[in-house]
Amino acid sequence: MENFVFYSPTYFVFGKDEESKAGKYVRRFGASKVLIHYGGGSVVRSGLLARVKASLENEGIEFVELGGVKPNPRSGLVYTGIDLCRKEKVDFVLAVGGGSTIDSAKAIAAGVVYEGDFWDYFQGKVITKALPIGTILTISAAGSEGSPDAVITNENGMYKRGATGEALRPAFSVLNPALTQTLSPYQIACGITDIMAHLFERYFTTTQEVEVTDRMIEGLLLAMIHEAPRVIKDTNNYQALANIMWAGMMAHNNSCGVGRAQDWASHDIEHELSAIYDCAHGAGLAVVFPAWMTYNMKHDINRFAQLAVRVWGCQMDFAQPENTAKAGIAALKQFLQSIGMPTDFAGLGAKEEDIEKMAHTACYGDGRKGTIGGFASLSKNDLVAIYRLML
Amino acid sequence: MENFVFYSPTYFVFGKDEESKAGKYVRRFGASKVLIHYGGGSVVRSGLLARVKASLENEGIEFVELGGVKPNPRSGLVYTGIDLCRKEKVDFVLAVGGGSTIDSAKAIAAGVVYEGDFWDYFQGKVITKALPIGTILTISAAGSEGSPDAVITNENGMYKRGATGEALRPAFSVLNPALTQTLSPYQIACGITDIMAHLFERYFTTTQEVEVTDRMIEGLLLAMIHEAPRVIKDTNNYQALANIMWAGMMAHNNSCGVGRAQDWASHDIEHELSAIYDCAHGAGLAVVFPAWMTYNMKHDINRFAQLAVRVWGCQMDFAQPENTAKAGIAALKQFLQSIGMPTDFAGLGAKEEDIEKMAHTACYGDGRKGTIGGFASLSKNDLVAIYRLML
Repeated sequence: MENFVFYSPTYFVFGKDEESKAGKYVRRFGASKVLIHYGGGSVVRSGLLARVKASLENEGIEFVELGGVKPNPRSGLVYTGIDLCRKEKVDFVLAVGGGSTIDSAKAIAAGVVYEGDFWDYFQGKVITKALPIGTILTISAAGSEGSPDAVITNENGMYKRGATGEALRPAFSVLNPALTQTLSPYQIACGITDIMAHLFERYFTTTQEVEVTDRMIEGLLLAMIHEAPRVIKDTNNYQALANIMWAGMMAHNNSCGVGRAQDWASHDIEHELSAIYDCAHGAGLAVVFPAWMTYNMKHDINRFAQLAVRVWGCQMDFAQPENTAKAGIAALKQFLQSIGMPTDFAGLGAKEEDIEKMAHTACYGDGRKGTIGGFASLSKNDLVAIYRLML
Repeated sequence: MENFVFYSPTYFVFGKDEESKAGKYVRRFGASKVLIHYGGGSVVRSGLLARVKASLENEGIEFVELGGVKPNPRSGLVYTGIDLCRKEKVDFVLAVGGGSTIDSAKAIAAGVVYEGDFWDYFQGKVITKALPIGTILTISAAGSEGSPDAVITNENGMYKRGATGEALRPAFSVLNPALTQTLSPYQIACGITDIMAHLFERYFTTTQEVEVTDRMIEGLLLAMIHEAPRVIKDTNNYQALANIMWAGMMAHNNSCGVGRAQDWASHDIEHELSAIYDCAHGAGLAVVFPAWMTYNMKHDINRFAQLAVRVWGCQMDFAQPENTAKAGIAALKQFLQSIGMPTDFAGLGAKEEDIEKMAHTACYGDGRKGTIGGFASLSKNDLVAIYRLML
């Protein structure tokens, strides 16, 4: 294990109806004027937004609103939010929604108290200060409710980039599994895929002797594999949704990623897809991951075999461990198909002729130096080959 | 899963030499005068205490010292510490040691800012305020470096009781696995047993459909089973110690115990043993747990079988699952013996004639109502039977 700092001071409130106490939690963290940030119609139609506003009003907390966050959230709305918060002297940003809304809220919260262009943070500058953030989560997926990260799509060129900094950890997050009961099986499956991807990105490491985090990651993956078919069959299954919701937070608050090199190339590879085709991030990851694994398993066959045996229940082929590694990848692909995820370009509406451009942008766009990835360093040519495995 | 709040705001710094920056971490949390609290000679002899003091001096932070914490820490020293802190106007308590020292520091930190007798907290009053606490951990075991709990032995009757409250979560904890390289195999094995016990106490639940926390607990147990023989063979094995150290924190900060009923009867049963015989808490737990499991497996055979199959690699006996459950308990006992732990009364120096008294005190002592335990409610007669299984 490598040295690390782990600091996850978010106050997590888990359970039914907790969103109705949003005002109380906002008050706990000293807010006087709140920006309520949200996406489209569902939080309005479901009455969730009204419940949250009523809760703030009951506590006598002022607020302004900014809706309109899209999946793969855009830089334009972040600038709008920053201007609004400054004009209205907002001192707390409350995200009501999923990862896109939370990430947009985080970018606003950081941008408000930064003198420069908030995009600086998405080009590598570490975020050290931001307004406090609260979240009311409506889909288990991104893990942003417990993470110090945010991902935004720059509309000036349509590419996604991430930013990080401890200041982005939410002050509180309300996790009510019942709020996710209205999602479609497809949306839930996308979320599950995103959660599993966060675990894989941590699992594929070059750091040796990390049994404790290996086992935690495997445990969370096994829980997802158990719960996914239950909830796809019945999206109303509160207990399955509850298990998935906690797994989604644990998968990305980094308690199982500490002390080990991680690999985020698959997320980068996917970001090109969702930036161009505006596909769901989870659906993109379902296509990317088996391809990334197939291409990279040569770098550590035993690690892939370990995953196959411990998580997918494959038999170890001691004579030829790569057969086991391959069986694990096949099991992942079959699992993703079973929950309704696409596993090739056609399923995303992606086009072969864009491969060259995506590989180039992933490696060289916006200041990058020509390679991505920690488990295996991938050049543009490698990425072309990986994208081609998705055809 | 049941509703819950999870709030673990401790700043964990993990890695070599981090204790030399203790002054910096103390400053981060705004201390002006520190009580350095520690146990016996080892932190002095090893030079650890001197390094910590030098670090505080370098930062210009004043401090006073109180050593002398014993294993199974006593109420008397807590009163001394409270008086000292009040007299010296201490505003931060820094524990340098293991669980006993940290728990003693927590009791002092809570007692200083409480008008009544600190023992009130150990009779069920929830702790809502305390001086901030820092820890520099020297043994992986109690998990107190990340938990909101403390256990103290009342010298007026020699019985152990626990207290809890979010105010007891340390502000920071320095986890340097290298500090545990000087421990004996026996001390390390006691720590491993304590960590595993914290996982078992959470695992044996009456809450249904808690796959995500089940799998996390199982994963941490599997990691301990992997690392234990490596470190018993070579107590200098930094990587094994590092994995155990992070597992010890994760086992008890409750991220894998949320949303499920827990059972702390085994800890209560053990506390009577270590209060009377002053045995190591981990050694006591090694004796208690197989007995508690054997007596209580009837309440949920399938849960015991699940543990046996998933953690101990037992074959499932589908015709008679209790055979699998028993095989799992046998495997645990064998594992504990293999790392040098006692598994009966003789190994602890405990005496059959004290059983009646211990069972009575565990059930009725200091305000208790006659039963303990959450997985199975245990009366005095049950406890007598369980203690007898340890003979």
